[in-house]
Amino acid sequence: MSQKPNLPQGTRDFGPLVVQQRKYILHTIEAVFKKYGFMPLETPAMEQLNTLSGKYGDEGDQLLYKILNSGDYFKKLAAHQAQAMGHEELDKTILPSFDNSIEHLDAKKSLPFIAEKGLRYDLTVPFARYVTMNRNSITFPFKRYQMQPVWRADKPQKGRYREFWQCDADIIGSESILNEAELIKMYDEVFDKLSLPVIIKINNRKLLSALATYIQAEEHFIAITVAIDKLDKIGQQGVSDILAQTGLSSEQIATILRFLNLSKAADPIAAAEDMLGQIEEGKLGILELKKLQEYIQLLSPINTIEYNFTLARGLSYYTGAIVEVQANIGNFKASIGGGGRYDNLTGIFGMPGISGVGISFGLDRIYDVLEEQKLFPVNLRTNDTKILFCYFDEATQLKAISLCAELRNQGIAAEVFPDITKKIGKQLDYANKLEIGYACIIGETELNSNTLQVKNLFSGEQYPMDITSMINLLQ
Amino acid sequence: MSQKPNLPQGTRDFGPLVVQQRKYILHTIEAVFKKYGFMPLETPAMEQLNTLSGKYGDEGDQLLYKILNSGDYFKKLAAHQAQAMGHEELDKTILPSFDNSIEHLDAKKSLPFIAEKGLRYDLTVPFARYVTMNRNSITFPFKRYQMQPVWRADKPQKGRYREFWQCDADIIGSESILNEAELIKMYDEVFDKLSLPVIIKINNRKLLSALATYIQAEEHFIAITVAIDKLDKIGQQGVSDILAQTGLSSEQIATILRFLNLSKAADPIAAAEDMLGQIEEGKLGILELKKLQEYIQLLSPINTIEYNFTLARGLSYYTGAIVEVQANIGNFKASIGGGGRYDNLTGIFGMPGISGVGISFGLDRIYDVLEEQKLFPVNLRTNDTKILFCYFDEATQLKAISLCAELRNQGIAAEVFPDITKKIGKQLDYANKLEIGYACIIGETELNSNTLQVKNLFSGEQYPMDITSMINLLQ
Repeated sequence: MSQKPNLPQGTRDFGPLVVQQRKYILHTIEAVFKKYGFMPLETPAMEQLNTLSGKYGDEGDQLLYKILNSGDYFKKLAAHQAQAMGHEELDKTILPSFDNSIEHLDAKKSLPFIAEKGLRYDLTVPFARYVTMNRNSITFPFKRYQMQPVWRADKPQKGRYREFWQCDADIIGSESILNEAELIKMYDEVFDKLSLPVIIKINNRKLLSALATYIQAEEHFIAITVAIDKLDKIGQQGVSDILAQTGLSSEQIATILRFLNLSKAADPIAAAEDMLGQIEEGKLGILELKKLQEYIQLLSPINTIEYNFTLARGLSYYTGAIVEVQANIGNFKASIGGGGRYDNLTGIFGMPGISGVGISFGLDRIYDVLEEQKLFPVNLRTNDTKILFCYFDEATQLKAISLCAELRNQGIAAEVFPDITKKIGKQLDYANKLEIGYACIIGETELNSNTLQVKNLFSGEQYPMDITSMINLLQ
Repeated sequence: MSQKPNLPQGTRDFGPLVVQQRKYILHTIEAVFKKYGFMPLETPAMEQLNTLSGKYGDEGDQLLYKILNSGDYFKKLAAHQAQAMGHEELDKTILPSFDNSIEHLDAKKSLPFIAEKGLRYDLTVPFARYVTMNRNSITFPFKRYQMQPVWRADKPQKGRYREFWQCDADIIGSESILNEAELIKMYDEVFDKLSLPVIIKINNRKLLSALATYIQAEEHFIAITVAIDKLDKIGQQGVSDILAQTGLSSEQIATILRFLNLSKAADPIAAAEDMLGQIEEGKLGILELKKLQEYIQLLSPINTIEYNFTLARGLSYYTGAIVEVQANIGNFKASIGGGGRYDNLTGIFGMPGISGVGISFGLDRIYDVLEEQKLFPVNLRTNDTKILFCYFDEATQLKAISLCAELRNQGIAAEVFPDITKKIGKQLDYANKLEIGYACIIGETELNSNTLQVKNLFSGEQYPMDITSMINLLQ
């Protein structure tokens, strides 16, 4: 009856060391979130499918994990099919003879009858839902952070998992650009604390909108954004080809490329103003970028910022500043965080006109970079145990247990090897494998003496001391 | 297009204060886990259904949340149906005419075609799976803790949720009863730190087994266990009725009740030895209980222990010590934790003969008791912010931002109110609602002076000081 167990594709176990490393990242991020006044929120893993569906585009809908309804979902589905065929009276004896074969079932149309819930796809939509449901008890501006796993039925590959963690900070109910500046400063602080060099790219969606107006191609705004978003991967020629296919003239395309290249100007914002400052949206976008720049200068040196007009961001709900963080070390150049301002996210749930802005840290990608670049602190250990008590027999075991209890009462993490059947060598093996720093072997001599032998397992040295000295050593 | 959002039944959002309260419990538990040498493990929310199915009994199988496969699961199901009907060649043009209507589908048999994954139902089975898959890299005895949500499609009611957290500590690969003693001491320490009075009930499954032998009803062992488990709810008469229906004689039933009542004896273990000490399993169980008692006495006072033979525990995999913790305050007497020794849990995954023992804390029930009994520390706050900077105009806002940045550089959590459009009164409202202790209003005077006015928002008093004094005050 035994089976060889395995894990669902794209999911992972995190053993003791990996959990400690992930906690190191999480605590670093959380400490910064708190220092800037953000408050924690947690939402359930499961959401109603109608909360999630249609919020992430067609591709997103396909990647949603759906949870099977309890009970006999097929019965309900069959009843629905019969009804759809005009047979409102559900006669169970007739029903099976209908031509409602499984082959004919449309997975999409049948979905509500077999699944009504789905797994959280990101933290932003659940946040918007929470704000809408609790608007009367929330103090605005509401600064919340949320660090939880999300699930996407994406094709697993290096750096892409089906269960992964996002760490989000959002401010909702405030239009001040100061929020953008503080969020960018928070990015800078977190990656500085993690000793991870990054580039923080900043742009403003209003400039992209102004650009479309400038070349008289407003109807192609989304296509232009999508094409620009691919620049890193396909280069200028690739972007030009896509834009040409979209129906833009070579003159329009040249103008777009000229705009993108302004990113390399000595003062990109001034250059963009020269080009787009006469257009209403362009004027607004430049104003916002200048204000942001002013605030950022106040927030002491942030060396990692780049105003970059090639940044477009995939999500459609951004309406102002957009930001993306790239690791700037080794081969791993992929995005490890991003965010932006959205003017109407809660509108989908019936609460319009509330502006918000937020950033997200991709825990798993940050982990992958730190691991690849060996940037984790070397002192991270799988356990907190300071000392292991070893012994030979029943009498010495009892003494070891009492001594260990004394240490624990002083708040010191300590262990007694549990099995009396294992020899001292095996007991010390356990300590060495778990990188426990000290061992104390209780023998005949120690039974009738207050002097204990404490062995440093890294240096091999051994010191005699009483329990009080031991507590002082380990505290 | 707007919709009124809601949450799936039995799930909850946790707003800022509730998250802080839950973290207070989690940190208390985790600190004790670490002090006793346990190491963290995290497993994915999703497991293969064949890992989960059949491990929790029939009822458990029904309560598993199943995740719909991606792609067109109906096509696969139809192909399977056709095959099952002897039509191995799948001719799409013929298929629809088969009598494979939805009504005829058996939800259970069709399951593998529409769902292959499920949500974690507890932390013990994923732990057993992890140990089996990683047996070659694990150092045994392996002491792991795991604090994660689990999901059950149970009927929601007070104290029972569909998403809830378990906090487990298990030692696997050690047969020493010292582990049981330390786990019980850990229960005692955690609830002591939470100031929550509890009773820790201890029994040993071997005694229940010996009891069945004693009354010559070994074939009724499970029925007897199940009946005893209900004693708290249905009383002695109820248990007697069930046992009579099972086919036990009134003499046998009287013996069982006599055994249960030994719990009230001055020395319950000695009393049980008198009764069951001649039976092999009884002798072993008594030996284990005595050893446990000896170890517990070494671990300094634990006042909350009760050797109680009416404790049976639902889960079938326990083979030795069993333990359950009940809140002992107010009306909330329900179980808030439990555990026991299992001799062969990894056997189901092909790794037999490894003994383990573990305990579990029910975070959500502990939360409910602490909340009902008002046992949370009063100083828990939704945020860490020590001071809010308020201002009147652009110039004073810039000064406020600089001052706030100085505090943050010293590690002090501080905020500047973001929106310049809001008057001072509104800004202070924000601080009051979030229970921020201090406010510093930057006006014309402060622009050209090093003296700042710091207002204690609880007392209303205001003190002049420079930034250095402010840092000292808030650090």
